[in-house]
Order: sequence, then C-alpha cells, then structure tokens
Amino acid sequence: MLSESTETLPTIADEEFADRGRRLQSLVADEGLDVLLVNSSESDFANVRYLTDYWPVFEFAGVVVPPAGPLTLLIGPESETFARDRSRRDRIRMLSEYRESADPDYPDIQVDTYASVFEESGVPSPKRIGLAGSFATNFIMLEALRRAFPDAELVRADALLTQLRAVKSEAELACLRAAFRISEEAIGEILEVIRPGLTELQLVGVAQEAIYRRGAEYEGMVQYVMSGPNSRHAISRASHRVLRAGEVVQLNISARVAGYSSGVGRPIVLGRLEPEQRAILEFGLEAHHATASWLRAGVTASDVARRYRRYFAEHGRDDLFLYGPCHGLGLIEVEPPWMEETSDYALQENMTFQIDTFVLTPEFGARWENGARITDDGIELLSDRRMEVVEIG
Amino acid sequence: MLSESTETLPTIADEEFADRGRRLQSLVADEGLDVLLVNSSESDFANVRYLTDYWPVFEFAGVVVPPAGPLTLLIGPESETFARDRSRRDRIRMLSEYRESADPDYPDIQVDTYASVFEESGVPSPKRIGLAGSFATNFIMLEALRRAFPDAELVRADALLTQLRAVKSEAELACLRAAFRISEEAIGEILEVIRPGLTELQLVGVAQEAIYRRGAEYEGMVQYVMSGPNSRHAISRASHRVLRAGEVVQLNISARVAGYSSGVGRPIVLGRLEPEQRAILEFGLEAHHATASWLRAGVTASDVARRYRRYFAEHGRDDLFLYGPCHGLGLIEVEPPWMEETSDYALQENMTFQIDTFVLTPEFGARWENGARITDDGIELLSDRRMEVVEIG
Repeated sequence: MLSESTETLPTIADEEFADRGRRLQSLVADEGLDVLLVNSSESDFANVRYLTDYWPVFEFAGVVVPPAGPLTLLIGPESETFARDRSRRDRIRMLSEYRESADPDYPDIQVDTYASVFEESGVPSPKRIGLAGSFATNFIMLEALRRAFPDAELVRADALLTQLRAVKSEAELACLRAAFRISEEAIGEILEVIRPGLTELQLVGVAQEAIYRRGAEYEGMVQYVMSGPNSRHAISRASHRVLRAGEVVQLNISARVAGYSSGVGRPIVLGRLEPEQRAILEFGLEAHHATASWLRAGVTASDVARRYRRYFAEHGRDDLFLYGPCHGLGLIEVEPPWMEETSDYALQENMTFQIDTFVLTPEFGARWENGARITDDGIELLSDRRMEVVEIG
Repeated sequence: MLSESTETLPTIADEEFADRGRRLQSLVADEGLDVLLVNSSESDFANVRYLTDYWPVFEFAGVVVPPAGPLTLLIGPESETFARDRSRRDRIRMLSEYRESADPDYPDIQVDTYASVFEESGVPSPKRIGLAGSFATNFIMLEALRRAFPDAELVRADALLTQLRAVKSEAELACLRAAFRISEEAIGEILEVIRPGLTELQLVGVAQEAIYRRGAEYEGMVQYVMSGPNSRHAISRASHRVLRAGEVVQLNISARVAGYSSGVGRPIVLGRLEPEQRAILEFGLEAHHATASWLRAGVTASDVARRYRRYFAEHGRDDLFLYGPCHGLGLIEVEPPWMEETSDYALQENMTFQIDTFVLTPEFGARWENGARITDDGIELLSDRRMEVVEIG
C-alpha cells in the first residue's frame, strides 16, 4: 500500500538557475562569441535542464544565450503548456526544428525561427555562433541554422557548459546524495528477492518500483541487471534472460533527483565462488579502493588514469583490464570530464565522479561503481554500502 | 513476491530482420542513392532497431545500407560486447563519432571511420548519400561525414524507413497487442490505489512495477500521470504534485514489447464531475468514437483530419480543440506518418495508429488514446477498456 509522501527531497532554487545563466553569459562574452546555442534531447537532456530546469520528451529543446539580456528557451510545437509550467525561464519560443522525430507538419501552429529569436535576443546577424550540446544538435536544426545565417561561423563550444557544470554547488550535491541513497536502498530491495529463475527485467521492475516509492523523478540511467555472460557488457540493457545459480549478476541501479543522476554498481554472486573467481572479484575491489585513495583536489586526472592502468600491470592482471578509472557525474550519470590518460586538468573541490572499476573475464564481468565528491584532502563517497564480495544462497 | 516467469511474449524472427534489410536495399537502389546511412539515438531508437534489433544506450547507433551486400551496424566504442550479443547483424563496426555525449577521447581504442566502412561496403566514393534518422544525426557525425566525403550530396531519406515501417507484419502486430494489453492491465493496477494525497510520480512507480512484472522490456514512452492543471499538457513528465480530490488525473500508460510501444490514455476523475465538466468529457469520448468510425483502408488521411476538425465546429466545441486526430504507432509510440490536414496518403491495411483525442479547457485537459490497426472495413482496436467517464471515490 502506497503511503502519502512525507519526505521532501532537495531541489535547485530559482536563484541558482539565474546565477548559472549569468556565469554562462560571461563565458560567452569572454569567448568572443556573438551568441551561444545550447541544445538537448530527451535522452541527452543535461545542458538545457541545467539552464532552465526544463526537460524535453519526444521533442528537442534549446537555449539561446546572448552575451547580455534574457536567455530564451526553445521548445517544440507540442510542449508549450508543459514548458510554461516547468521552465525557470519566462521567455519561451516554439521552433518547428525542435519537433519530434515523427516529423509532423503542424499546418495550424504558428512558430518562431532561429532568425526571429536571435533578432529578439539582440544578435540579428551573428558572425560567430557557439554550439553546445553538439551531440543533441541534429541535421534538421543545422540545416535551418545554415539557411538563417549562411555566413556565420559555427564553433563547438561544449566546453563552456562542461566548465560550469563540473564543479557542483551545495544544492547539486544534496540532490546527488539523495539519488545515491535511493540507489543503495533499491539495491537492498533487489537483494531481498533475487534468486535463480527470475529474469533480469523482473528485477528492473523491482528497482523501478523502489526508486519511485522513495521519491525519484526518473531512473538515473537505464537500470542495468546483467546476468552471466551479459555481465561482460560495459553498456547494456536488461533482457528476458533467466538468472541461473552460480553466476554473477551485475547490478547498476540508478535514480534521478531534481535532475541529478546516481548509479551504484555491484556484482552479486548467486551462490559461492570458486577460489579463482573470488580472487578476481577481490582484485577488483582492491583496485576500486586504490583508485579512491588517489583522488583529491590538485591531482591531475591523467595521473590517476595512468596509475590505474599500472595497478593492473603491477598485479599481473592486465588480462582483466577493460577501461577506467573514473568519469564525470552530475545531471547525467556519465558526463564530462572523463579521467583518461589524455585528461590534463586538475581535480577541484566539489567536482563529482563515478569511480568505475570493471574487471572483465571471458565468462563474466564485475563492476563496482560509486559516486565521489572531490575534497581538499580526499573524497566524500556518495555510496559505499556492500563493498564486499556479495554471495547469495 | 515475484513468481518465475512462465508467459512468453512475442518477438521478431531473424528472417524478418533479413527481409527488412532486403526491402530497404531495393528502395535504396530505386531512389538512386549510392548508399543510405541510418542513425538512431538512445531515445530515438526506432530505425536502427528495425534493421538490427540493437538499441543503443548513452551512445548512438547507425546502419550503413549499400544497394547490395551486407548491412553494417555502427556502434560507439563502449557497446561492442552488448551489440555482439544483441544485434541480428553480424557486421558491426565501432566509430568514435557514435560515442556518448560525455565526449571521451578513448586514447586506447581502435575504431573504424565512415571512410573505412563505406569502402568495405563497396561504396568508397559515394556521390549521393541518403540520410535516414535525420533527427538522430548529430553535429559530430555530420562534420565527420563531410570531412570524409566533401563532394558528396547528402539527401534526406527518412521517407524510405517510414515507407517500410508504416505497414506492420503479423509479428509486429502481435508485439503491439501484447504491449497494449500490458498497458491496460497497468492502468487497472493504478485504479486500485489512486487517491488524493499520492503524488503523480508515486503512480508512475506503480505503472513501472506493473509493466515489468508482466514482461515489458521498457516503458513504451515516459509514463504520463498528470493531475489537475498538469492534465493540460500535450507532452509532459510526471511531477511531485500531490493529487487532490475532485480533479482530473490524466494517465497515458505505456509498455514496450520486443521494441513495439503502446500508450493507453484515460482521464480519471477523483470524485464526481459537475454536469458541465461531464459534458466536456462525454463530448471527448464521442469525438474519439467518431474518429474510430472514420478509419478504414482506402480513406485519405487528410480527410480524417479535416472531418475531425469539423466535428468540433459542428458541435460548437471549437473551444476544446487542441490537436488530433491520429498519429502513427509502432516502435515509437509517436512515429510517422501523422494524420494532419496536409497528409495526402491513403490508409492501408495493417498500418497502425494511435487515435488520440484531446479536449482542452482552461482548467484541465482530458485525453483518450487507443491503438488501432487499419483493416479493409474498419479497424481492430488494440485497447478499448474503460471507455467511459471514470469517476473514483
């Protein structure tokens, strides 16, 4: 029986949205851009949500950011009432280029254009247009943009949003902490029912019920329940595969709170491991803890990546290496910046990362994933329960 | 307590995927294209799934379709194991342009390129490249495509996939019927618990638990639970709003079976309506049934749209009109073709549509949505339960 909700989860205040806009406008001016166009899609929603709290479904969304003056939220022709109720920005314009992929004509709907919105934003003839959300900027939008401003230079400017989003505020951290707590509790509920004979997707249902009952607004990412050979997938979707005794089931369970996404990864063993397999899981756990111990403000990200790679080599376990060791965490469960051997930035206080440790064998994979906030002398873990070899039954 | 799954839901056979590829290749040749590039994203997944059964998460996916010879599935650098286990196509190539928006460098991963895959597909120097999945083709891909083939013409070819996908096979219809049945049963479970004091998102949790327990692989679309003023949203996301006595709660509950998506829409009244409000809901129901009665093979889609518009006018209810009357249904719950006053195609047997009837007032909206298969003399409804004014409590 569902009880009436009493707990209030954290949110982001209007003033914080206003501040984000001002800081972005200052970066737009510093960058020498005439205007910045930010785009998002249903699944790649983060940039527009960061600036407006609006989060598209089916359709696309964008934000026009001039160096000064109001920002404009761009939406598709069917989202006006939704966007007016939801957006923290008052200036909202509909563009047919932000329509859904079902590609309706909407013969009766009056819409704006890039030209009309840019003019209204004080940049009727931009020479240099920055583009953020390049992965959510589609062919339809680009054709319209080139028709409207054939002589303008289009410059990738995703880095401006990355720069703003990488260091989290207190309110953002509160949302992340709540999202990780919900994930850990949902894993607890899965562990109460998991057994051979159930399917991966049945356990996804358990996770979904648990996160919404606890106040999540959505899954933080697709819920991973990957059994046996499927545990080898770095990216996956749960399937109708039936769980069998003796195998590893990889759980990566997520929740979203006010836009902020968690993902807690744990490999669960349905039975008892052979000593050789147990040694592999114990090595993975040690690699995870070692990675956590290397993180603190001031450390160069590429150093962590190199040290992690070396850790596998020094322990004679190169055979288990797939990737790692960390990636950015925030609105999206995987967001920039990554920690790779090419990552030459220094970690800063209140950056947040997933510590993501994967050991891969020909038969199974095992992965521990925990959120971490960078502090001056180390990290605050956003999740840390069940960091042992979990054997069930 | 979860029971071990016994029921098997329908799927699409390998041979049907092979046949789709052959039919598409014949259209590519007829169209005079040197090659077709098909793209999909996590949320706009349909075209790649139609051809391969693969369905990306975080990353993008594509299919290279030459006029003859094997099709190639394009994936991002992290999805190889997942794609090999899941794709019905054996030729799979990784492209860095299909990476996730977190924008990793992947310094250690060997990838292919558009140039290498097109060459391997027998089209090393295409002059005319068709593009399908335009809404999922992003700036990163387009830049790479233009660098690889600076002199090639890029032609929108979404219509080829629409043409194939619009008429459903028996296996596709079986998936849709199962998905609609699950949606109707999930609505039944919501009606058992819905009451003032719960939040919209708590009821989303009920729907999610219900669809996975019944074997769905995912939600068919974001589950809509929109209460009071939120019921006015044509597109929406459920919120933490608390349901109140006396108001309308709009449910659009969905499930996905083997890729095929349902959405069943019903307005639920938490109490008893005033006569004027009841008349509005009854008009909406009548408009819905009238629309259903106009559908059959051979009818021109634009005639249905005009007739629907006229129906509101003739009943003196233009004030309630927002949009309608039908849109395509299949892998995505809203897919082409739409039924608008500009839609000059004829309905064909085994096309599937959502009959989507929305009446909008300043205080609330009410919407009935049911799947329909076009037959020679009418329609087969994919959902039809609770087509009355549902008042609870």
